[in-house]
Amino acid sequence: MMARRPLLVTMGDAAGIGPEIVVRAFVEGAAKGCVVVGDPGVMQRAAALVRPLGVPIAVIDSPGEIDLAPPGALPLVVPSGLPPGLAACRWGVVDAACGAAAARCIEHAAAGVRAGEAAAVVTAPIHKEALAAAGIGYPGHTEMLQALAADGGPAPPVRMMLANDELRVVLVTIHLSLRRAIDAVTYDAVLQTLRIADAAARRFGVAAPRIAVAGLNPHAGEGGLFGDEEQRVIAPAVAAACAEGIDARGPFAPDTVFMRARDTPSHRGEFDLVVAMTHDHGLIPVKYLGVESGVNVTLGLPFVRTSPDHGTAFDIAGLGRADAASLSAAIRMARRLAAERALEVIRLGRSP
Amino acid sequence: MMARRPLLVTMGDAAGIGPEIVVRAFVEGAAKGCVVVGDPGVMQRAAALVRPLGVPIAVIDSPGEIDLAPPGALPLVVPSGLPPGLAACRWGVVDAACGAAAARCIEHAAAGVRAGEAAAVVTAPIHKEALAAAGIGYPGHTEMLQALAADGGPAPPVRMMLANDELRVVLVTIHLSLRRAIDAVTYDAVLQTLRIADAAARRFGVAAPRIAVAGLNPHAGEGGLFGDEEQRVIAPAVAAACAEGIDARGPFAPDTVFMRARDTPSHRGEFDLVVAMTHDHGLIPVKYLGVESGVNVTLGLPFVRTSPDHGTAFDIAGLGRADAASLSAAIRMARRLAAERALEVIRLGRSP
Repeated sequence: MMARRPLLVTMGDAAGIGPEIVVRAFVEGAAKGCVVVGDPGVMQRAAALVRPLGVPIAVIDSPGEIDLAPPGALPLVVPSGLPPGLAACRWGVVDAACGAAAARCIEHAAAGVRAGEAAAVVTAPIHKEALAAAGIGYPGHTEMLQALAADGGPAPPVRMMLANDELRVVLVTIHLSLRRAIDAVTYDAVLQTLRIADAAARRFGVAAPRIAVAGLNPHAGEGGLFGDEEQRVIAPAVAAACAEGIDARGPFAPDTVFMRARDTPSHRGEFDLVVAMTHDHGLIPVKYLGVESGVNVTLGLPFVRTSPDHGTAFDIAGLGRADAASLSAAIRMARRLAAERALEVIRLGRSP
Repeated sequence: MMARRPLLVTMGDAAGIGPEIVVRAFVEGAAKGCVVVGDPGVMQRAAALVRPLGVPIAVIDSPGEIDLAPPGALPLVVPSGLPPGLAACRWGVVDAACGAAAARCIEHAAAGVRAGEAAAVVTAPIHKEALAAAGIGYPGHTEMLQALAADGGPAPPVRMMLANDELRVVLVTIHLSLRRAIDAVTYDAVLQTLRIADAAARRFGVAAPRIAVAGLNPHAGEGGLFGDEEQRVIAPAVAAACAEGIDARGPFAPDTVFMRARDTPSHRGEFDLVVAMTHDHGLIPVKYLGVESGVNVTLGLPFVRTSPDHGTAFDIAGLGRADAASLSAAIRMARRLAAERALEVIRLGRSP
């Protein structure tokens, strides 16, 4: 078996909890085999939050040099072009320099994984307003990584998957107002989501993924009484997916389909994943039992990318009490998915 | 202490699981002190599903005669004007006669509780298409009861509350397409919901209700990037409610506010109830852990009305395996709320 390539973990927004949870995951042993992409001063400041004496940081030139870091030292690659003085930024305050630095780390990590130097990318939280203040026109990681994967050609279609131990949800729309999201629920968007979701689930080890499709309207439109998107858009896309051999079912009433898919030892899920039309239809149930275990996976990219399912938590940044559980889960998930790409034996969750 | 008045339980749609779960709740002891409003033949057919030898049914003239029913017999009042031959209707099939009968039972129960003959109304599930086939223009119980409470005057503003042991949600909009629901999220609608929710929670025994308001858009609009309803409509309504002395907070991101409000022994909720803008934002989390314990309460009516939070389940109607847990929970909740109206000592859930 060949030596495992490292995972790249970006530090996220320097004013948020990102650097702190990265250090904490490392100290807790959850980031073994990971190389952090970030600013040395920012990481040092974060290390002091986690341990009174800090944590040694080993700056290396590339992910392949991970073994040069002494035991107990956090391996760090530093992208060129980071703004100076980042470690002096104020905790919990939107700062254009932090936005620019976060974006540089993402670019650097994406280039590294695309060059084959790393097995996957795990991203700590960024702040959309800081990105915007830095003049970066992406509402989030997903859109930015999609553009970075385009190589100047057409961007690959990507979708956000949120997963925890019980439930996996793939979203048709994400960072749009609800009004614009409804407009974006098209036949093509739903069918594309079903194709991406099915391919991803198979790659993750589910031999015959059972995919439930949630409707858009209350009671999935109640036969057209409460909206016609189910009849006009969603059902035809489900039928087209079925014709392609995808086991897609629905559209089902949004308020009960997640409960039906929930998979626990005492309640076997009826489906392997649920396709949801809107950000909050999908994320409310994934997060309901607590965000600690939730992981965000970007499907459709030419590389594995995961992240925690929470944000920069500006309200507790710098206080030393951020929880690294979701980042650690994201690292575990990335490791499994990246390994699976080579070995093809990994299974997703408890699904058969 | 005066003798308790009975609760009225409507049979629901005769082709669905309503009559069966009513009998089952009675047999399981959960419907003590309840009088059923329905058709004798339909209730007899349902009783045969629950017990091989059926269950004796005692037809009485009014709820006040409940004590005339022999021990073990299900007390039943029969509204005038029920269509003939209802007990021959086919299980699981939309039938105008069943829709008309279900509506008659609701009217009869509403009249009884308004006349002071009963303490509360609990409704078994009806089928919207059967109602429509009978020419009854209400999309559901809530709207019909609202009209019945109007006495020809203006209808009282009512709101749907869904409650289980962990979470209580009050909805600004219910049976509308998502597109029309967005239009219906107005300053007046949100403020009215906050007033109704606050008054209801106080009447239910929460001395100083902490009300969280969920946003409409992803991340509650992310400062206007993903929609402006939060800034334009919801935040001003929250501010107006606060000015009236209501402890309303938000709008918060819809994907995390329900998790924050979730109240369990190991996770104390930050709020006593959540106001949600759309049907599915509110119902997805209430139902996620299973519909068995969920109860629907109509707030704003001049009487107590609860129902189970599931539908007619046409797919399993007539099979004798419907679960009465949610109806039993609805009966318990109605009994508590009705008693509280007299005694003012009942507390809702675990909230302080």
